[in-house]
Amino acid sequence: MHYPDSLEKLIQILKKLPGIGHKSAERFAFQMITWPETILTEMGEIIKNAKKNLNFCAECGALSDFNLCSLCDPTQREIKQMCIVATVKDVFLIEKTRQYHGLYHVLGGLLSPITGCTPDFLSIISLKNRIKKLPLEEVILAIDSTLEGDATALFLKKELKELGIQTSRLALGLPMGSSLDYIDGGTLATAFTGRSTW
Amino acid sequence: MHYPDSLEKLIQILKKLPGIGHKSAERFAFQMITWPETILTEMGEIIKNAKKNLNFCAECGALSDFNLCSLCDPTQREIKQMCIVATVKDVFLIEKTRQYHGLYHVLGGLLSPITGCTPDFLSIISLKNRIKKLPLEEVILAIDSTLEGDATALFLKKELKELGIQTSRLALGLPMGSSLDYIDGGTLATAFTGRSTW
Repeated sequence: MHYPDSLEKLIQILKKLPGIGHKSAERFAFQMITWPETILTEMGEIIKNAKKNLNFCAECGALSDFNLCSLCDPTQREIKQMCIVATVKDVFLIEKTRQYHGLYHVLGGLLSPITGCTPDFLSIISLKNRIKKLPLEEVILAIDSTLEGDATALFLKKELKELGIQTSRLALGLPMGSSLDYIDGGTLATAFTGRSTW
Repeated sequence: MHYPDSLEKLIQILKKLPGIGHKSAERFAFQMITWPETILTEMGEIIKNAKKNLNFCAECGALSDFNLCSLCDPTQREIKQMCIVATVKDVFLIEKTRQYHGLYHVLGGLLSPITGCTPDFLSIISLKNRIKKLPLEEVILAIDSTLEGDATALFLKKELKELGIQTSRLALGLPMGSSLDYIDGGTLATAFTGRSTW
């Protein structure tokens, strides 16, 4: 007994969501067909128009409501620092901390031989041009501490060396509220090396 | 810094999916805005039309491609058994086992004081009418072994008693491939009581 056509189609398209396999997609789909028609229409419209009103800043690559990105505006931001991140979401995560007031640069991903993400897919050329043009004092790599993140950070360090700009990377250590019991040896060792006076 | 309007709307509507909170909805949304416009349009259309071509059988409540439900067709199914399930999805799950060839009846949910699902929301009246009308020998309750499932099964047992029909419920015991180590005491005790000769 097969699923009706429209249900099968729904399950297949829901599987495109990150981390959603066949079982979860089925669960979503069977829930969705119990929703009123109006909610389905609303959701469909929102998804269709999701990108219509989104602008990506031509300068930094972050999401912006208007063509002029407030994150690139020298009257609002300190232009002596630039934070390099992988995705547009990272910009929101860092902005939420209210800790950083400099510029951003969105790479658009991390180097990964498996997914075929080579340097050509990242905004490296525009990054170099911006660094040359701006009166920067520091470039901060706010990049995942993963295999791909480490590879990308190393690559950028090499690429930016010739520009003579000071680069830094986010501190490695214990996450706030964590217990030593649950921390892996690598993190613990790095936290020891990076200890601060107290 | 707030999310752009269309992104915020997307996150809010994705939170309606079962088991999806704010964090997961954000993850979905930020992934979705990297998709090509065509995929978003396709997904939007599929969701809008998800219910358009779905028919629910007026007799058993299961999903059917046509108005005449093949699961209710006496030439294709044994009409001496009826399996009572909570949702349309359960019908597919049972059909996949190829173990059962009788009729179905979809309740449309389980009794739950918390969500406000009272007997009025379930198809109890049509169930009774069908049982009276059909030459049934057995009614099988294929219902979750949860608090809500147990309450619904007990309620149905009482309701169907007056109709003088034999009712049964799915066996409780060890799931196939499971180890005693990981089974709760309640299941183990029930499996002992319900042991079969070997």
